[in-house]
Amino acid sequence: MEHGIERVRTTEVGAHVGERIRVAGWLHSLRRMGGVTFLVVRDGWGMIQAVTESESELGELATGEVSVESVITVEGLVVSEQQAPGGFELHNLQVEVITPVTEPPPVSLNKRKITANIGTLLDHAAVTNRHPARRAIFRLTAGITAGFRSTLAIRGFTEIYTPKIVASATESGANVFKLDYFERTAYLAQSPQFYKQMMVGVFERVFEVGPVFRAEPHDTTRHINEYVSLDAEFGFIQDHFTVMAMVRDVIEGMHAPLTEQYGAELALLNVRVPEVPRAIPHIFFPEAQELIFQRHGVDVRGEPDLSPQDERWLCEWALEQYGSEFLFVTGYPMRKRPFYTYPDPRRPEYSNSFDLLFRGVELVTGGQRLHRYEDYLTALEKANLPLEPFKEYIEAFRYGMPPEGGFAIGLERVLMQLTGLPNVKLTTLFPRDINRLVP
Amino acid sequence: MEHGIERVRTTEVGAHVGERIRVAGWLHSLRRMGGVTFLVVRDGWGMIQAVTESESELGELATGEVSVESVITVEGLVVSEQQAPGGFELHNLQVEVITPVTEPPPVSLNKRKITANIGTLLDHAAVTNRHPARRAIFRLTAGITAGFRSTLAIRGFTEIYTPKIVASATESGANVFKLDYFERTAYLAQSPQFYKQMMVGVFERVFEVGPVFRAEPHDTTRHINEYVSLDAEFGFIQDHFTVMAMVRDVIEGMHAPLTEQYGAELALLNVRVPEVPRAIPHIFFPEAQELIFQRHGVDVRGEPDLSPQDERWLCEWALEQYGSEFLFVTGYPMRKRPFYTYPDPRRPEYSNSFDLLFRGVELVTGGQRLHRYEDYLTALEKANLPLEPFKEYIEAFRYGMPPEGGFAIGLERVLMQLTGLPNVKLTTLFPRDINRLVP
Repeated sequence: MEHGIERVRTTEVGAHVGERIRVAGWLHSLRRMGGVTFLVVRDGWGMIQAVTESESELGELATGEVSVESVITVEGLVVSEQQAPGGFELHNLQVEVITPVTEPPPVSLNKRKITANIGTLLDHAAVTNRHPARRAIFRLTAGITAGFRSTLAIRGFTEIYTPKIVASATESGANVFKLDYFERTAYLAQSPQFYKQMMVGVFERVFEVGPVFRAEPHDTTRHINEYVSLDAEFGFIQDHFTVMAMVRDVIEGMHAPLTEQYGAELALLNVRVPEVPRAIPHIFFPEAQELIFQRHGVDVRGEPDLSPQDERWLCEWALEQYGSEFLFVTGYPMRKRPFYTYPDPRRPEYSNSFDLLFRGVELVTGGQRLHRYEDYLTALEKANLPLEPFKEYIEAFRYGMPPEGGFAIGLERVLMQLTGLPNVKLTTLFPRDINRLVP
Repeated sequence: MEHGIERVRTTEVGAHVGERIRVAGWLHSLRRMGGVTFLVVRDGWGMIQAVTESESELGELATGEVSVESVITVEGLVVSEQQAPGGFELHNLQVEVITPVTEPPPVSLNKRKITANIGTLLDHAAVTNRHPARRAIFRLTAGITAGFRSTLAIRGFTEIYTPKIVASATESGANVFKLDYFERTAYLAQSPQFYKQMMVGVFERVFEVGPVFRAEPHDTTRHINEYVSLDAEFGFIQDHFTVMAMVRDVIEGMHAPLTEQYGAELALLNVRVPEVPRAIPHIFFPEAQELIFQRHGVDVRGEPDLSPQDERWLCEWALEQYGSEFLFVTGYPMRKRPFYTYPDPRRPEYSNSFDLLFRGVELVTGGQRLHRYEDYLTALEKANLPLEPFKEYIEAFRYGMPPEGGFAIGLERVLMQLTGLPNVKLTTLFPRDINRLVP
């Protein structure tokens, strides 16, 4: 691996026209047309084409025994060439094989689209994630989480790391994974809800990016059993509208790196990053149900929650009415929200909570939480929940907490809605579902 | 919570001398001396003192029935005052209680040092983490992880999120937590090792910040059962020295935010951020053992690993010899390193691996990994490990991988060494140990 010429990333080749450089990466494709050989080198960031009419320039590749995905290094002269993908290519080559591959991968990685069925894609994720259209998704993942972090850090939020092994289920015993913990039973955290709330007492404004675990026994296109939750919580709010204003800024901040730094990935995936209105429109839950009745003749009034169809209808309406792909629905009924939810002071059967809908699907859930110790005692009693498992949690409220609230965003859900992928399992590197534990 | 004057953070009060402002936060302390009342407001970022001789300015606080940790808002005139902590204080007050607290917290939060024993501290972490000396540690946590991320992002690394529920133990069946996974047995990831290696095939350079889980049945000052691992892995390396050079830059990059933005926390904790030498000294494992024999007369030559005492001795030597608080030990014997470790080509009983020692303790482990498929087959056989559980993992190597390596840093270990805290449990918000699952 000692070389005379320093390596250049494929994405930086264009800055070296007329120079002799070296690239390294995977042999993405190798085509021989008449006497001309086109090879494409894929490195961690992009791709570059190299062209030669000379067999000797190809080195070991000339034998035909070295497959695509072999790791190679290619020295060559950088030439501006309109016909070449990206506008540049390498001539006068010197190719060296670093790690030869003898058989092609189980799924072709150099077609524009990856055509295997989802089972095959996921079984071989270690390899299929190399496909440019697959890895572009995971590059966006990094961009979105970086945007989430920086938006909140600028606003005085502190990043926290809270335990994923917990003594009891967060909200209910359902859908929680059980664990052997030194001969006791423990659980995997369904959310960092209680921890982020406790931490409002410490830092006032906190966020966390971390795995959460849901033992939902469904195998659908919308379920995975482990996902990344983007959580935030903060104090000194007025009510849930303060939280919604923050959500709006965070959504915009999550998109900012995409348009600024991930243009190639967006183009490859044909993703249009949505405009986030300065003020996202909002509608009060019962009024949303009334609207559905008026517009579609379906009477969902009195239902405790919105159905997927309801959410799609409401998003259609928001797009027509406000030109917005986003819509807040506020005031979900208390009976469908967890015990720590703050009731609407004027209409106590409704809550100071919200969902953010985007392109027909719920993207964010949040709201104001109870912040007075006595209110927690009352709420637990009303929910028929014992005090004991919540003792350490509500201690934070016993010793002073301002009005506070927060929200949670499912990272994979965001990616699914943004990319239009048909299955949430395609938005995460190595998904976990009811049947899938590998890779 | 509607107020005429916009709220100012306590850390920004100094920019408003001569103005009337409003701060909000927790009543950190309340002292009455003669006719003068001193109160300190603590918000999410810092503290500010307010002073008055008038009972009426104190509002509800004058009753004496409102305890410290009550949430309050204080309007006042900003005055420059050398005697005041921070150099500024508020006069001509108007105090309002937002959330009254009636009983003081179980551990006093307004003494310079927090004096409770560790059990009490951790039992009441929801409240004790509010103590300025406690929360400073967790602020450093955020700074260190931000520095880790930015250092690697600048160098072309992509952040990844890999599953924590896995089908088999990473390296050995020992020390792994078992899980009920839809009537099968699954495990909690002991490290993202295999996933980050697979992802070298996708992005070439990757990192992850996430929880890892070790079911070590020890209750010591150096063990926790869930911790945050800072992992990185990258391709196209020469050997482990390429990785060590990256580790050096990452350590420096983790410290950079501390000195730039966390001066108050460093001062409060009396932390001296170490100088990272441009080239950290290194010593080959058997030579380190020889050195110990020469200097201390203790013959550890031939031992397969270093003891804690050995590590302390070596650090003393590096400080004397090179003025460095850091020391790389390279070439640990293959028999003590995991099967995927790359052997030293010239001395195959030793490995292309390293540990980074800092102030007497191992801080980072890393090295070069095998990258050829055939080498994995041979190594698994040699280690008496079956192929089946590793099939999907080593598929990444079947289809082309460059020479690669990486490292892992234990976040809590870094904090412990940096702050000099006597117990690693004090470096994490809500630690998990063999006995502790709450809060």
